[in-house]
Amino acid sequence: MVESITLKRKDLLGMEDLGAEEIYHILDTAESLKEISTRQIKKVPTLRGKTIINLFFEPSTRTRTSFEIAGKRLSADVINISGSGSSVSKGESLQDTAKNLQAMSPDIIVLRHSVPGTSHLLARLLPCSIINAGDGAHEHPTQALLDLLTIREKKQRIEGLNVAIVGDISHSRVARSNIWGLTKLGAHVTVVGPPTLIPAEIEKLGVEVSYNLPEVIPQADVIMMLRIQLERQEKGLFPSLREYSRLFGLSRTKLVNARPDVLIMHPGPTNRGIEIEPEVADGPYAVILDQVTNGVAVRMALMYLLLGGKAE
Amino acid sequence: MVESITLKRKDLLGMEDLGAEEIYHILDTAESLKEISTRQIKKVPTLRGKTIINLFFEPSTRTRTSFEIAGKRLSADVINISGSGSSVSKGESLQDTAKNLQAMSPDIIVLRHSVPGTSHLLARLLPCSIINAGDGAHEHPTQALLDLLTIREKKQRIEGLNVAIVGDISHSRVARSNIWGLTKLGAHVTVVGPPTLIPAEIEKLGVEVSYNLPEVIPQADVIMMLRIQLERQEKGLFPSLREYSRLFGLSRTKLVNARPDVLIMHPGPTNRGIEIEPEVADGPYAVILDQVTNGVAVRMALMYLLLGGKAE
Amino acid sequence: MVESITLKRKDLLGMEDLGAEEIYHILDTAESLKEISTRQIKKVPTLRGKTIINLFFEPSTRTRTSFEIAGKRLSADVINISGSGSSVSKGESLQDTAKNLQAMSPDIIVLRHSVPGTSHLLARLLPCSIINAGDGAHEHPTQALLDLLTIREKKQRIEGLNVAIVGDISHSRVARSNIWGLTKLGAHVTVVGPPTLIPAEIEKLGVEVSYNLPEVIPQADVIMMLRIQLERQEKGLFPSLREYSRLFGLSRTKLVNARPDVLIMHPGPTNRGIEIEPEVADGPYAVILDQVTNGVAVRMALMYLLLGGKAE
Repeated sequence: MVESITLKRKDLLGMEDLGAEEIYHILDTAESLKEISTRQIKKVPTLRGKTIINLFFEPSTRTRTSFEIAGKRLSADVINISGSGSSVSKGESLQDTAKNLQAMSPDIIVLRHSVPGTSHLLARLLPCSIINAGDGAHEHPTQALLDLLTIREKKQRIEGLNVAIVGDISHSRVARSNIWGLTKLGAHVTVVGPPTLIPAEIEKLGVEVSYNLPEVIPQADVIMMLRIQLERQEKGLFPSLREYSRLFGLSRTKLVNARPDVLIMHPGPTNRGIEIEPEVADGPYAVILDQVTNGVAVRMALMYLLLGGKAE
Repeated sequence: MVESITLKRKDLLGMEDLGAEEIYHILDTAESLKEISTRQIKKVPTLRGKTIINLFFEPSTRTRTSFEIAGKRLSADVINISGSGSSVSKGESLQDTAKNLQAMSPDIIVLRHSVPGTSHLLARLLPCSIINAGDGAHEHPTQALLDLLTIREKKQRIEGLNVAIVGDISHSRVARSNIWGLTKLGAHVTVVGPPTLIPAEIEKLGVEVSYNLPEVIPQADVIMMLRIQLERQEKGLFPSLREYSRLFGLSRTKLVNARPDVLIMHPGPTNRGIEIEPEVADGPYAVILDQVTNGVAVRMALMYLLLGGKAE
Repeated sequence: MVESITLKRKDLLGMEDLGAEEIYHILDTAESLKEISTRQIKKVPTLRGKTIINLFFEPSTRTRTSFEIAGKRLSADVINISGSGSSVSKGESLQDTAKNLQAMSPDIIVLRHSVPGTSHLLARLLPCSIINAGDGAHEHPTQALLDLLTIREKKQRIEGLNVAIVGDISHSRVARSNIWGLTKLGAHVTVVGPPTLIPAEIEKLGVEVSYNLPEVIPQADVIMMLRIQLERQEKGLFPSLREYSRLFGLSRTKLVNARPDVLIMHPGPTNRGIEIEPEVADGPYAVILDQVTNGVAVRMALMYLLLGGKAE
């Protein structure tokens, strides 16, 4: 299906870890596997007899479903476990849970957890492969990979593109993983948001900072909107949704000066009317649903590559 | 397996839409597929590589399980998603959810939702097949189809039968779908219940109305009891459970004048001792469990027929 | 795979029911099936086309996952149902639920329920096989079987061994099932705990009683710790966790006088620092994770043996 059948790593924990060559290898594999989901029979026997555990301590129907479909289209057995949170919030009991699951011989554990670094912890503890499906505000590497795949698909390249990431940069694992991924592949990244939602010294990651979305739009090849967590507002990090939306929401008005081939991305689910106008989210520049489709392909690729050397 | 392998429609949204010929085609197919569940190996490869999503915004263990088993016995991959309700109660975000799921290339989405018409909405939005597993008080077509299958199985015909549907007609999607289905196939339907629970102008659907169960029983070939939603009582729609039960509950006493071959049906779960006496629910005229068995067969038939043209 | 392919019983309800020969037959089968989980392709087609329903009215991620993995590795279709509890707490509605599930033609229902005897009730009602996955404080036979498998694996025998079961004997289905299993196979069992947590007349089951853990340790070949249910303390059954832990918790200090080849077991999840010191739970004598691994094997064996005569 693809020539090289493995990643030289046990786990996929973050974009920070990955080299450009590995990223391209994952994207190439995803591109090649994407076609399976368009067949009449959307299933290949590649991972038959493999056990994949979706261990989600934060609820996420979309991401869990994407991983479940990816696993099943590769013929793996997929087991869903949703953590009640309370009983597993302490590091020690997470270890206990993990070791217990390991004792049932899974091949991959897909982990989502609210505490940054939990995937890394599990990866050190367990011989099975770990895929980080989001750890707190730290990383969400499969989201970045599906974003990169979508950009490359639409623009035929990533290197040299101007990408604006807009919103609550401070609390966004999507932003963090995309910054790592995009800069490694040679894109120019500008993070845009109110000063209260952009971390100090973010420039050290190789990005530029802007507090003015209209100024950034004309140069952008890609505008990646982040989901606003509405509960942040209560903490005084931005004055009002209306003001946030006026300054940093993506509207048709603001897009008047955009490039004619600008790509508009959003990890979903969107807060329509807040960070993105409905007409923009559904408009001709938006590739939000392509991102979802590519999510299945990227996750299939990772499962395939992580277990590649071990498949039949 | 069966000769004609498809329905000439993308979706199964309600009995109101279906023609008599289509209904008979579904029943014939279900009859033919029913045998699979009696085999040692209760599985055929028909829908291998197909993805079926059970999207349930109202909890329903029985119906969800029936669809899940139906899909798995046809070798489809079945994904369960239960909506938290709150985050998806607005039409717009349901659309968002639906489009996101569509982007993962499902073949069928089975939808249960408390808002009437949501299945129709999804069917217009999405290219995949939608099966309505209950939309508010509107329709529950797979229940009607399994009821029709059960009646035909036991009576060898539907045309000309006298069917009494008893209970809270106003709020019952089961009643509504059965009225459409039964009248299309030529049965005579009488709805029976207290005036507060029978909608005005229901006669326009081609049924008769009675407020007196004992009067209806002697003519009935089939008595279809509905589940009383106990929370309705608080809204003053009927005076007391005891009185409801005395007037409209099905008891051995009331059945004294029934036909010797009367069929007693209930969509489950029963409120034993309220709308149906335990001795009646478990008695020789009741076919409640046949209905459940036929539910799997009808759902297999629909999955098969909706995807028929597309199967391998 | 193994020579005899069936148990001469429809259900696996408790260790009290089983004869020594049957227990050995299950253990031998589990030993032989255990190897499947170590293969590259951890799956055999044995139970293809069989439907297994996990019906869990008490939450239990570990046990449910173990049964789900066991079923899938045998290629069965596994359906998970978790009871909301309230709607099914009454015996009658459990019967209703069970009969409805039976009407969908499952081959095995795996039942966990808080009420002792529910598995027996279902087994009498339904033609399909029932596996008791824990019924109140009554029995948890698959736990006992995996414990026996682990002991035999490590000690090459069970007969003649001294086994101490330590903790809240009164409320433990694990203790009860292990007492039946161990004594049937000829082990000498001593139950150890505070007098308030040891049932009167427990000696009638063929065990000795001790209120002094340090006295029991030097003779023990196996020390089986039970999980303390922290909510018991509120009911005044033991004075304080600290005191409980000091007297009946398993610590390195107490183990100084243990046999050099003592086995330390725990059904999990452990309350680390209460009934077992973390250094002991993770130490060289502990076989807690072997127990988990053997849990999958034992459950595969039971599914295989109960359906054996009916497999392809």
